[in-house]
Amino acid sequence: MSEEQQGGVCDVSDVSEVCDVSDVSEVCDVVVVGGGLSGLCAARRLKERNEKLRVLVLEAKGRVGGRTLTLSLPASNGHDSWDMGGQWFTTRAVLNAKISTYTSSIPSFSPLVLLDFINFLWRYKHLHSPSFTLNIERLCKSVCVENPMETPDALQLDSMTVQSYMDQHIWTAQLTEELKLCTRSLFGLEPSQLSFLYFLMYSAAAGGVMKLLETTPGSAQEFKVKGGTQQLSKRVAEQLGKGNVRLGSAVMAIWQNEESVQVKTGTSTITCKAVIVTCPPHMAAQIEYRPALPLKRQRLAQWMPVGHMTKFIITYPTAFWKQKGFSGEIVAHPSPSCPFGVTFDASSPSGSPALVGFIAGVQDCYWNSRESEDRRDAVVSSLVKYLGPEAASYIHYEEKDWAKEEYNGGCPVNVMVPGMLTFYLPSLRTPCGRIYWAGTETATRWCGYLSGAVQSGQRAALEVLADVSPDVLSESELQEVRAGLLRTPSDLSRVWELTGGSASFSRFLIGLTVMAVSVGGAVFLLKPGLCSNCLSHVLAVIQK
Amino acid sequence: MSEEQQGGVCDVSDVSEVCDVSDVSEVCDVVVVGGGLSGLCAARRLKERNEKLRVLVLEAKGRVGGRTLTLSLPASNGHDSWDMGGQWFTTRAVLNAKISTYTSSIPSFSPLVLLDFINFLWRYKHLHSPSFTLNIERLCKSVCVENPMETPDALQLDSMTVQSYMDQHIWTAQLTEELKLCTRSLFGLEPSQLSFLYFLMYSAAAGGVMKLLETTPGSAQEFKVKGGTQQLSKRVAEQLGKGNVRLGSAVMAIWQNEESVQVKTGTSTITCKAVIVTCPPHMAAQIEYRPALPLKRQRLAQWMPVGHMTKFIITYPTAFWKQKGFSGEIVAHPSPSCPFGVTFDASSPSGSPALVGFIAGVQDCYWNSRESEDRRDAVVSSLVKYLGPEAASYIHYEEKDWAKEEYNGGCPVNVMVPGMLTFYLPSLRTPCGRIYWAGTETATRWCGYLSGAVQSGQRAALEVLADVSPDVLSESELQEVRAGLLRTPSDLSRVWELTGGSASFSRFLIGLTVMAVSVGGAVFLLKPGLCSNCLSHVLAVIQK
Repeated sequence: MSEEQQGGVCDVSDVSEVCDVSDVSEVCDVVVVGGGLSGLCAARRLKERNEKLRVLVLEAKGRVGGRTLTLSLPASNGHDSWDMGGQWFTTRAVLNAKISTYTSSIPSFSPLVLLDFINFLWRYKHLHSPSFTLNIERLCKSVCVENPMETPDALQLDSMTVQSYMDQHIWTAQLTEELKLCTRSLFGLEPSQLSFLYFLMYSAAAGGVMKLLETTPGSAQEFKVKGGTQQLSKRVAEQLGKGNVRLGSAVMAIWQNEESVQVKTGTSTITCKAVIVTCPPHMAAQIEYRPALPLKRQRLAQWMPVGHMTKFIITYPTAFWKQKGFSGEIVAHPSPSCPFGVTFDASSPSGSPALVGFIAGVQDCYWNSRESEDRRDAVVSSLVKYLGPEAASYIHYEEKDWAKEEYNGGCPVNVMVPGMLTFYLPSLRTPCGRIYWAGTETATRWCGYLSGAVQSGQRAALEVLADVSPDVLSESELQEVRAGLLRTPSDLSRVWELTGGSASFSRFLIGLTVMAVSVGGAVFLLKPGLCSNCLSHVLAVIQK
Repeated sequence: MSEEQQGGVCDVSDVSEVCDVSDVSEVCDVVVVGGGLSGLCAARRLKERNEKLRVLVLEAKGRVGGRTLTLSLPASNGHDSWDMGGQWFTTRAVLNAKISTYTSSIPSFSPLVLLDFINFLWRYKHLHSPSFTLNIERLCKSVCVENPMETPDALQLDSMTVQSYMDQHIWTAQLTEELKLCTRSLFGLEPSQLSFLYFLMYSAAAGGVMKLLETTPGSAQEFKVKGGTQQLSKRVAEQLGKGNVRLGSAVMAIWQNEESVQVKTGTSTITCKAVIVTCPPHMAAQIEYRPALPLKRQRLAQWMPVGHMTKFIITYPTAFWKQKGFSGEIVAHPSPSCPFGVTFDASSPSGSPALVGFIAGVQDCYWNSRESEDRRDAVVSSLVKYLGPEAASYIHYEEKDWAKEEYNGGCPVNVMVPGMLTFYLPSLRTPCGRIYWAGTETATRWCGYLSGAVQSGQRAALEVLADVSPDVLSESELQEVRAGLLRTPSDLSRVWELTGGSASFSRFLIGLTVMAVSVGGAVFLLKPGLCSNCLSHVLAVIQK
């Protein structure tokens, strides 16, 4: 791990000075679990608002940055930096099915597929009134990100997968494949593994489906960070100061009572007033809580799956693809010979030529159990196939399978399967006593992204301040915190009130009418006399 | 826990004699993790076939029986035994919407709902040939339980929830509600939380959907065990002998290399040739494995959710409901006042009157976070409402929320969400080196039931024998084991080959035809001249 050799304020060597005594008992005001962007921004917000607060960030790994990691790799001009994790998060060109050149952010489709795509984006049949069609983007905007269960038809949308929705609304196999590439690149998962309502909520938190896919201003892929995104965390950690960010400190247990919380690592017990847990939900689920967390919170944290995502950087002496007139963007459909789904040009700001690629979803499922040499060779030979023989003469190949990173276990984000929003949503952000929840999964703006990590950390910091240091908050901030906490999603009793209803009934009526007309028609054809008799009987009854 | 006071061969006091030394190093041939029915039957099968094998069962709890638990409760004649877990597993009368009397196993429906139910059971539109309709029972039989991905349309069936299927095929809100009650009672989960293919596989493993619901011979609810189902485990544990079943021994880690496996509890390390892990998947996921298990196995074990299920027994001085002409079977729809979904008469073989009830799925989600007294009071007042004021004068109320049982965490069974069979199925039974998998979740007959636990334990024992003691197996048994292991579900590369295809294309053609006819019709109405011109052009082109 070359980034560990880079030094900086927060490496393990600094830490050993701080905690070389075993089973130390310590006291502070707030402990933040997780030194990713979310946890560090939470800590900074706490200190910004009340510098007297003693805040301690505990990070299990030997580095800060969570799901961002910037490595220095051998490159054309010696060494250069690349992001092995969160970057802009790439889905920029995934709507392209082969190597092609285009200038707009959505690549060109065949007319049939384009028709299908427009149909998919625009023609959403409102479930309870089939005659009323809704634009899927407008549907996205109708989703209340804070409480998706308030969305019209929320129960039905959360009871289906993205794949089920696609099966009902997409005509061409090609568009189906393109959209699978999208969810694979966005989540590391296939459309069959995601709740459709969750997908809408995730898109809504980004401002719309197209925002996730485009490269236009305001969309997900607008910016990259020169020098790498891990810098963001390193800078914030620097601001917080050595003593306040402790690496190599995995939290094993959080015990709370009415007076305080105890946070236990392998070597020390820290007593404090509040804890902000920022690690990914499935990692938070491995901490021992006393008293046990509410069952719904346990279930949510345990069962929010995280995708399969391996990212690779391959550096070259020259950007030979540009000389050939290629952009470096390849979109490859899954096959047993090509591991990646997408690649992009990843040449550094200082000009070191490189490509970045993603092995995600079903492709990563297939490839991650193979030997890393085989995977690398398959990547290189696929690049040769698409870009020419020069692709074989690379300087360095580096890959990062986030599922294998300890204290992480997957990238880019924990998602929700059908039914999860319906049954467990209230547990996502609701504090459990003195335990507060942050991390990009809990964000309501850019959930799953770096911005979401920052937003969630700052929100949790305000929640804690409202409890431990309310005097530093303005009245409007206090109200905002209270409103956020009160905006508890609807009670489960609404679930059973909302089930059944008009959709089933209208479908039943349609069925019944069709059946009546068919049977009536058949009878009329066979026995016109009988039929007119019946009809006069019915008319007589109606007249009565 | 009154069952711990009952004594018997396997209680904790016996165990302390065996392992009062800390960090003991031991050696045996096979370690079985989990003293439920599956683990004990695996151990017995190993000893039956080769009595020289040193087999050790490690059970984390202070009792054997896993998800079966028989308690002695205060009753009309002093004390009597009731099952708080696996019993026959009740769904017997859930297809009834109110208190009623009936003699067949499926209660009477209104004609409309009956029509809908028949339609649901019989009219399955085959996805790739819409004109061909399949009986859902026949569809069930078409599922290969060993490898559900070989089922026609497997990918599509696994990409939808049971709820999505119901939404497409059920007309009446009432039938929807009844079927929700079914999945709630069978799995402790709502139809939106289950993969439809998984539901078909589970049903197929039981011989069909109706087999899960009926009480006729050969169906799931045919038998109860006099004296309780936990006896089964206790008897097998007795046969194995004290020294071979160790209670209070939670397995923390399993480390293997090419020569052997080390199984670590808090107090000892046992070196052996093979391990059979029988605990529920999400508990197996908490063991530390070195080397790490394949990622797919990790994901499968972590993310197979388990339902919400609380069972209660309430004992009475008399079976007053019978005197009133009621069977004791109540089916109540979810409401904020009534916690249970179903109750049944549970009077003991010796005549102690009692009712058994289930709080499951969304109802348990809603009720399990409330105080136990409130839940009990709500149960009793609901019984009063349905059965009369005598219901208030109970002798004893006992409830068991399996989610709160340590080393268990849920009942009745871990299930699969959409996409799980597609992506992780091969990991369900495939051994990982010297680690073999059992437990009712891995059964291919009566998966999720007591019989499935036995079958899976015996299957894993044969797999181990084929490795450590092949001489005791017949040639046909060896072939059976090999065939079972080779029947590895299809490679993931099939997943991307199977996607897309005729369904989308036929839907596209239909859409295109409808659009062409509409546009053509409109144009014809507005500009008949233009239309005939166009038509002659098209005809000219075709003739060329």
